[in-house]
Amino acid sequence: AAVAALTTTIPFNDVDTGCREIRRHAPACVVVEPVVDAAPDRAWLAMLREETRATGSVLVFDEIKTAFRIAIAGASERYGVEPDLRVLGKGLANGFPLAAVGGPADLMSALDRTWISSTAATEHVALRAALETIRVSVAQQVPGHLGRVGGQLYRGLEQLCARFPAAKVSVKGIPEMCYLAFEAPALGGRLSSAMASRGILWKPTAYDFVSLAHTAADIELTLQALEDAVGRMLERG
Amino acid sequence: AAVAALTTTIPFNDVDTGCREIRRHAPACVVVEPVVDAAPDRAWLAMLREETRATGSVLVFDEIKTAFRIAIAGASERYGVEPDLRVLGKGLANGFPLAAVGGPADLMSALDRTWISSTAATEHVALRAALETIRVSVAQQVPGHLGRVGGQLYRGLEQLCARFPAAKVSVKGIPEMCYLAFEAPALGGRLSSAMASRGILWKPTAYDFVSLAHTAADIELTLQALEDAVGRMLERG
Repeated sequence: AAVAALTTTIPFNDVDTGCREIRRHAPACVVVEPVVDAAPDRAWLAMLREETRATGSVLVFDEIKTAFRIAIAGASERYGVEPDLRVLGKGLANGFPLAAVGGPADLMSALDRTWISSTAATEHVALRAALETIRVSVAQQVPGHLGRVGGQLYRGLEQLCARFPAAKVSVKGIPEMCYLAFEAPALGGRLSSAMASRGILWKPTAYDFVSLAHTAADIELTLQALEDAVGRMLERG
Repeated sequence: AAVAALTTTIPFNDVDTGCREIRRHAPACVVVEPVVDAAPDRAWLAMLREETRATGSVLVFDEIKTAFRIAIAGASERYGVEPDLRVLGKGLANGFPLAAVGGPADLMSALDRTWISSTAATEHVALRAALETIRVSVAQQVPGHLGRVGGQLYRGLEQLCARFPAAKVSVKGIPEMCYLAFEAPALGGRLSSAMASRGILWKPTAYDFVSLAHTAADIELTLQALEDAVGRMLERG
């Protein structure tokens, strides 16, 4: 409870509230996941950068989902905003356990005032996997591929929602990281089961990520299966 | 500060103080690293087990250093005391990043009341490494080997300390996990440098662990280098 009392939340894409809260609590550490169910407004990101800088606060981008996906360097690259610290994980080593935090020397030197155990400091398998992941990401321009197959998926999901208004479902996220949000969450679970029976892993919640392995044909197959599954769900009621 | 206020420390191997503190704070979670610079007294371990059980507290053994080292199952096996929860790490996967916590279902089901992210849940390389580590630990009776070469090291260190009283140094720990503790910590650092120049990695603090790779000849070489290095350090003052 005491730790929770040290934190507050600011609403996504709300410039006025965010500005007011940062000024109220500064100097503070403002941790932002740059894409949450929607793209960030540039004005909101600009406010975060400006207010944190003006108040001696630290802006942290959690780029765990967005780096190597919406751009190699994530949201900071795509939306042109430089955080003070950035946090990487997940896609960084493509399945091997690795996370990273980095920023300018004056902030990173805070590590000198604490202690981090180094038990796994000589574990180099995940580091090697990360090097290879970054090499492939750049060489094969993975974010571009995700934008293309993700765009195909996203547009297909929008058409699906428009075709079945009775399902009360909408598309959340952005092409590279989107999913179907049902007003009745149970329907999402039923859809996942129906998709599994068709041989397709479809998450009921955020996000149904596209990957380098997905082709246009895979997306087409997925969209056809979704249409069939949603149609049958509605028939059965 | 608020989290620190939720904790207190009990002195190692002090039956009366430990008993009093557990009764004062119960129900509590009593986390014990079973070997800290010395072996635990059986009476102390018995008190911990008895008082935690009697007061509805949970006894947790941090077996991160002791499992696969002083016995396959660590201190609980060697000293015959069953904790409620046990924590494993380090040697568990022999360098691959893996840790584990386990205990009876009624305690582990507390996980249902919280949420643990599963990003790395499909990372199986470290799990495979752990299986192989455990297989080798059992097949080659690694703790027995560590007891033998560790015993050789421990006895040699004791002789070293006796031979150089002016170094004001003593042996801490137990044969499988021991080190030299100088009254003047700077001497420990100087000794490590001197050992490094002889091609031997010798830690200035806890612990200089023996491993399956160490032979009796390695230990003899190490002890000779230590004797030479300490002797020269004392000559130079």
